[in-house]
Amino acid sequence: MRVGILGSGLMGGKLGTIFARAGHEVVFSYARTSEKLKKLALDSQGNARAGTPGEAAKDADAVLMAVHWSRIDDVLKQAGGLSGKVVVTCSLPMDSGNTKLIIANTSSGAEELAKKVTRAPVVSAFNTVPSECLFGVFEAKRKSTRPSLVHCGDDQSAKDVAAKLIHDAGFDPVDAGPLRIARYTEPFALLVAQLAYEQEGGPELAYRFERFKK
Amino acid sequence: MRVGILGSGLMGGKLGTIFARAGHEVVFSYARTSEKLKKLALDSQGNARAGTPGEAAKDADAVLMAVHWSRIDDVLKQAGGLSGKVVVTCSLPMDSGNTKLIIANTSSGAEELAKKVTRAPVVSAFNTVPSECLFGVFEAKRKSTRPSLVHCGDDQSAKDVAAKLIHDAGFDPVDAGPLRIARYTEPFALLVAQLAYEQEGGPELAYRFERFKK
Repeated sequence: MRVGILGSGLMGGKLGTIFARAGHEVVFSYARTSEKLKKLALDSQGNARAGTPGEAAKDADAVLMAVHWSRIDDVLKQAGGLSGKVVVTCSLPMDSGNTKLIIANTSSGAEELAKKVTRAPVVSAFNTVPSECLFGVFEAKRKSTRPSLVHCGDDQSAKDVAAKLIHDAGFDPVDAGPLRIARYTEPFALLVAQLAYEQEGGPELAYRFERFKK
Repeated sequence: MRVGILGSGLMGGKLGTIFARAGHEVVFSYARTSEKLKKLALDSQGNARAGTPGEAAKDADAVLMAVHWSRIDDVLKQAGGLSGKVVVTCSLPMDSGNTKLIIANTSSGAEELAKKVTRAPVVSAFNTVPSECLFGVFEAKRKSTRPSLVHCGDDQSAKDVAAKLIHDAGFDPVDAGPLRIARYTEPFALLVAQLAYEQEGGPELAYRFERFKK
């Protein structure tokens, strides 16, 4: 697949690297400097290059929305039309100080993003784990039981694309249902962040759902 | 420990049974009929009996708040003073139709309950798994890796009591921090419910946090 990375920070940089190593064609865009984008592309050791948001979106099968919430409108403007592309978003609707959700309960960041990109199906994914676990999960994928990763969206073929990327990153994709379930997954992301960054044990946290039948 | 069950429905009935089987002294209270309470006590095959909410609270080390949110004030009134007792709550602040949280993001059910019982420390626990997994987890506890169970609260000794009950029920207690983290754990409970009841695989769902270091 061709994957455009919109926002090449902690999440976008690592996920783009992993997608490239998994064999996808990746364009990194939207970082503080173009040098950072070039370094990410080089370090990925895969089929990756640096580009503008417009170049990342052009001909992409999927784009990863990984900017801070305050940058959504700007990156969408720079990316141009996303019509028909699968938009996988891991952007949480946080305030500028990253202390709380500014959209919650009666809507979600994913649903608000979907209202902005009405001609592109949105899937919420990759926001429920900290970036610190990503390389560990990717490298462990043949050795251990995969951790889960929840995703949700209203378009089944778009969810299939997201599930493929989730699987290629070393996770077990868990379909949590329609996009409105992001009202639950986004606060869950903050729970995971709390456990990863504020409690003991280190930030490389992931989770796995299991069934316990009697 | 002496554990009073306030609300002996799906969660309270099963958890009280498990606490009794784990060796605690349990009083079941607040069900539709006193026959149901007596049957729960008998079927638990442990040190358990039926009682009023006042009897469940009297001399208890901990009380489990497991009523529907709409019943909180009524059961508190019937239980009388909970001063000094550890209040472990699994009650989610749902609307009467059980479709959505009526308190979220800027507060939580656990925090609102804490405002009502100012002389008793509140710990939020046991609400992030469906009742259907409880017996399976309890019976598997010597055979498999324990699932996690998050809890949060502002009083460390109360959290120690809750963690002991969580451990005795077969889970690995995960301290998620202060009571305000219930703003994240309560929506997470709805995510787990969505996966348990609306997606494939059956409702006996639990979760485990794991670290994936590079």
